[in-house]
This record gives sequence, C-alpha cells and structure tokens, in this order.
Amino acid sequence: MKEFEFIHRFLSEVPIDRQVLLGIGDDAAVVMPTAQHGLCISSDMLVAGRHFFPDVAPEDLAYKILAVNLSDIAAMGARPKWVLLSAALSQLEEKWIEAFCKSLFATLAEYGATLIGGDTTRGPDVFNITILGEAVGKVLQRNHAEDGDDIWVSGRVGLAAAALHQHFGDICLPDEVFLACEQARLRPTPRVALGQELAKYNLANAAQDISDGLAQDLCHILTASQKHAILYADAIPSLPNLRQYLTDVDYYRYVLAGGDDYELLFTAKPESAKAIEDIAQKHQLPLTRIGKISAQSFDKVSREEDSENFVADLRIENAVGEPIILQTLGFDHFE
Amino acid sequence: MKEFEFIHRFLSEVPIDRQVLLGIGDDAAVVMPTAQHGLCISSDMLVAGRHFFPDVAPEDLAYKILAVNLSDIAAMGARPKWVLLSAALSQLEEKWIEAFCKSLFATLAEYGATLIGGDTTRGPDVFNITILGEAVGKVLQRNHAEDGDDIWVSGRVGLAAAALHQHFGDICLPDEVFLACEQARLRPTPRVALGQELAKYNLANAAQDISDGLAQDLCHILTASQKHAILYADAIPSLPNLRQYLTDVDYYRYVLAGGDDYELLFTAKPESAKAIEDIAQKHQLPLTRIGKISAQSFDKVSREEDSENFVADLRIENAVGEPIILQTLGFDHFE
Repeated sequence: MKEFEFIHRFLSEVPIDRQVLLGIGDDAAVVMPTAQHGLCISSDMLVAGRHFFPDVAPEDLAYKILAVNLSDIAAMGARPKWVLLSAALSQLEEKWIEAFCKSLFATLAEYGATLIGGDTTRGPDVFNITILGEAVGKVLQRNHAEDGDDIWVSGRVGLAAAALHQHFGDICLPDEVFLACEQARLRPTPRVALGQELAKYNLANAAQDISDGLAQDLCHILTASQKHAILYADAIPSLPNLRQYLTDVDYYRYVLAGGDDYELLFTAKPESAKAIEDIAQKHQLPLTRIGKISAQSFDKVSREEDSENFVADLRIENAVGEPIILQTLGFDHFE
Repeated sequence: MKEFEFIHRFLSEVPIDRQVLLGIGDDAAVVMPTAQHGLCISSDMLVAGRHFFPDVAPEDLAYKILAVNLSDIAAMGARPKWVLLSAALSQLEEKWIEAFCKSLFATLAEYGATLIGGDTTRGPDVFNITILGEAVGKVLQRNHAEDGDDIWVSGRVGLAAAALHQHFGDICLPDEVFLACEQARLRPTPRVALGQELAKYNLANAAQDISDGLAQDLCHILTASQKHAILYADAIPSLPNLRQYLTDVDYYRYVLAGGDDYELLFTAKPESAKAIEDIAQKHQLPLTRIGKISAQSFDKVSREEDSENFVADLRIENAVGEPIILQTLGFDHFE
C-alpha cells in the first residue's frame, strides 16, 4: 500500500526519541514515561464537513488536527510527547497523502512530538488524534479558579469564526481582513510554551483552551470551580480592524462564542499579573486580562445556591457596563 | 446533552484507579504510569458498514470495539489500564446510548480498564479507541521469532469469517453451527491473561493477535523477524463441526485468511512447550502448535536473499503434505 511507503519515508527521518521503545508497526507502541511525571492524554475526532471543509488543503488539515490536540496539551501545561493518528479516508491519492504527511511530520517536529501509532482504513473522511504529554510542573486544571482571580486570554479571538462566516456567506470582509482571519482558522498556534510556563511557575489557578467559544469554555472553568465571573467583552483582544466590518451582534458572537481559537483562557491571582506580563513579553504573545472570577454572582438577582447542582453565573458587559446577551455560548457538538 | 448524563452515571460507579489523577472532563486526562514499566499504546478506528453492520446491537458493538483493542494489549503481553473512546454518531437515541454505555463499562470492569477520556460528535458512525496498557514483563514483539520456534495459536479460528460469509449469503450453516460462529464474531475473547503469562514467564519469542487473517498476521511476524515458516493447515483448531459444511477452499480461506479472530499467534522455543501446555491447562484455553519458524525457506526453490528487501516465504500444507495456495492472505484495509 502506497500510503505506508510515504509514512515509512517520513518515519525514517524522524529524530529519535529515546523514550519510544517500540514505534509504529507492532500491535502497540511502547514508550517509557518519565517517572513521577503525570501523563496527560487527550483524544479528538474530526469529521469532514463538520470540523473541516472536505476540500481543505491536506497541508492545512494535517497541521490543524495536530494543532487542536497540541492545544489540549498546552491547556494542561504539559510538554507534547507522543501522537497516534487514525484516519478513515474515502480515497487514497498519492499527492494528497504525501502533502498531508509532509505537513504532519513537520508540525510534529516543530513541537517535539513523535508519531507512535494509529490506524488507517477506508471510510468517510474522519480523523482521530490521541496525544500524550508529560507534565512539567503542576497540571493546569479547570476546577481551581479562585475568588478574585483575573481572567486572562492569550492572543486574539474571534478571527476563525469570522473567516468561517465569510465562507458561509454571512459577512463580507475586505480581502486583507479575511486573509488574516482565514490564517487564524487554518493555522491556529497551539500555546504550548505559554502553557508550560504557567505550569512551571505555578501562575495559573485554572486553564483551558478555547475550542468551543470563549464564553462556553469559561463556563466550563466556572462550573468545575463552582465560581461566577464577569467578562469585559470590549477588553477581549481580536483583530483590530475586524470590528468595523461587523454588526455588534456578529462581532460579540464571533469573539465570545465563535470558538476554534485555540488560545489559552486562564485565571490567576492579581499578584501574578507582573509575572504573566513578563511571559507575554518573553514570548511576544499578547496576554490580556478580560474579566474577574468571584465566589458571588455578579448579577444583581441573588439566588439560592444549591451545591448539588451548581449553576455558574457569567455576566458579560460592554465598555459602558451594559450586559451582553448571547443567543448561544458556543459550539454544540451535537447541534 | 443526554448522552453525558448516562456517561456520568456510569462513571460514578467505576472502581477508583489511584493512578488516574484526573479523569474525564478537562482538556486531557492525567495518569501516573508505574515507574520503569513500558507503556503500550494502540489506536483502532472502526467504521459502520466496514468493521461492523450498521444495525449491530449497541451491547455487541461496545463489547467488540473494546475487545479488539484489549486484544492488541494482550498481544503485547501487557495489562490493560486506560481507554479513550471517540465516537462520531449519526443519531443520539437514549436507549441505544444507554445500552452501549452499560456494555462498555461492564467490559472495561471485566478487564480492569478505566475510561479516562475521548470525544463525541455528530458524524458518520465511526468509533476510535485508544488503549494504554502497562508491561508486566518483557513486551511481546513481532520481530523476535527464532529459527526452530514452534508457531502456536490460542483458541479456535475461522468462526468469525464463517459467520460473516453466512451474513453475506455465501454459505448456509445449520443454526447451531452459525450461532457458535456468530458468537465468536460478535463477542471475541481478548486473550489478556494468556498474553501476560507469556510475557511474565518469557515464553514467547514473537506474538501478535489475529485480526486480519492468520496467514497475513503470521507474515507480519515473519517479515519483522526476517524468517520463513511452514504452517500445517489441518492442525489449526476451528469449530469441530464447521468443516463438513464448507468446501475445502472456503474452509481454508476462513481459517487461514478470514481474520476477526482475536486469538494470539505466537512463536516459542520447542523446549517451552510443556510450560505453554500448563498455561493452556490453567486457563482452560486450547493452545495448539500449528507450524514451525525457520531461517531457511521451506519451499524447494532456493532463492537469493536480499537483506534490504526481505521476502518471507510461508509454506502452507495440508495433512498429506500438499501445498495450499490462498487467493488472499487476509483483510486489506483499503480493499
């Protein structure tokens, strides 16, 4: 089978990872994890027509299915190590597979990860990546946000959603704006170095990556931590010249509920701000405070808290303190 | 989302695995692998209409997608530990999902494995399982078959293929024969205890499970080990009363190239035979010698060996020493 020839050619060029005792080609791969380091493991399934356009370029597809998984490891503050890729492909085109593999192995190398296994079969263009990473310090969980924490976000959000809605014909952005958004959609940068810095220096109380939408992903932190939050929508960084081409409703929707951003969303004690800003400087990556965690609801209505069924309140307001109501907080996987 | 309610109910009943530091619900699970033990990792993708009938009972489907993965860990001689399940489902039926989950968690419990993560999305009925197991002794690889080794197989083979061909209308077995075959097809037993015994007592030189067909899977061992082999087709154990209902061509095809058996195929020094038979006795599991490994080809034609492009010779013969020629050695994932 031709596709294995490509894979073998790429595999033969992969830098050797001494922790990989047995790579691709047996019933299972065998690795030797570093003793006393937590091993983070995540799995993501991506379906043609749902998570990517069926005619996506193979280079972009390979990059992105890895990036979204690297982003999960980044959100744990761990170091990416090993990847397993399963693919059900409707057709086997030599050129397509070669371009896919080339991009896959280049991206793996860029992030120091090694392909150790997977599966290939004919089928309906579905990919599954399992990624393993080793903790470098504490792992960044969702459930440790604390009262008074600042809410931070890395990079810029809403770009991928804007590009997607341009594809859908919902909006019409000028070329240079669309291209910047499209680049963010196709080539999101997993914040792997940032995640490890936050973990190593114990700077974040809670963290996760933004895949389904900032508001929804923040709610995951809130629910897991049993906390409430206020979000300052106009403090959220996006592409500077994007907003002028959008209605307020669309702009807030893309930034707050668009998803596909793969930026890190994290909470930190206010006294950590200086150290976090130093990291931003060091990595030339904007890190922005966009809200506050609280043990009390920010909404005026007080309500009975039921610890069995905690409901997190998220108040989102604009620059003049008016509330922003979203129709949906983010992507529904079964919509 | 209803499906998560089921999952949470089942998760709440799962016995606690102290090595799982963080289970389902964050960006990644976190486990603490046993220090200095190799970690075996395998991933399998299963597609409706290709690996299972779209109308398969959810109980059987959940069992089987786990069993085929447990079988990979068995073939490494490792102990199953952690599982990640991704599912792209075309519809969400409460009853279907409940039955699926019930069977999934019962099977996990039976083999001492814990579900630690995965992904769910709407899509074309594709499942992906990633399984992790810890080595208990040496790991059983494919590439260590030695000159003079006996070839062994566990249990009985060819049953699943016979059941499948009855579904296809190719053959017509009496009810009780079909039911035994169908049981083997739907509920194969992963040879987890056997694999660990072989690894612990260092009894097997090479091993793998039979998923694609005995002859093809044996060729994987031969190629990886750069050895040749002879296989005594009439020594291969199958359902005793199956053969009488089949032509010789069909019988040999199902037994030698049918696949979906999930029995262990392994090679061992002749002096290990007694210890292996003791294991068979202990586990009440037939273990049968079905061939021999050789450094020399068993075919009379001598040929130049090219170490760069080793071609394994597999001679298959019947009880009277006549060669058996197969049209195909097993399942082609891209056929």
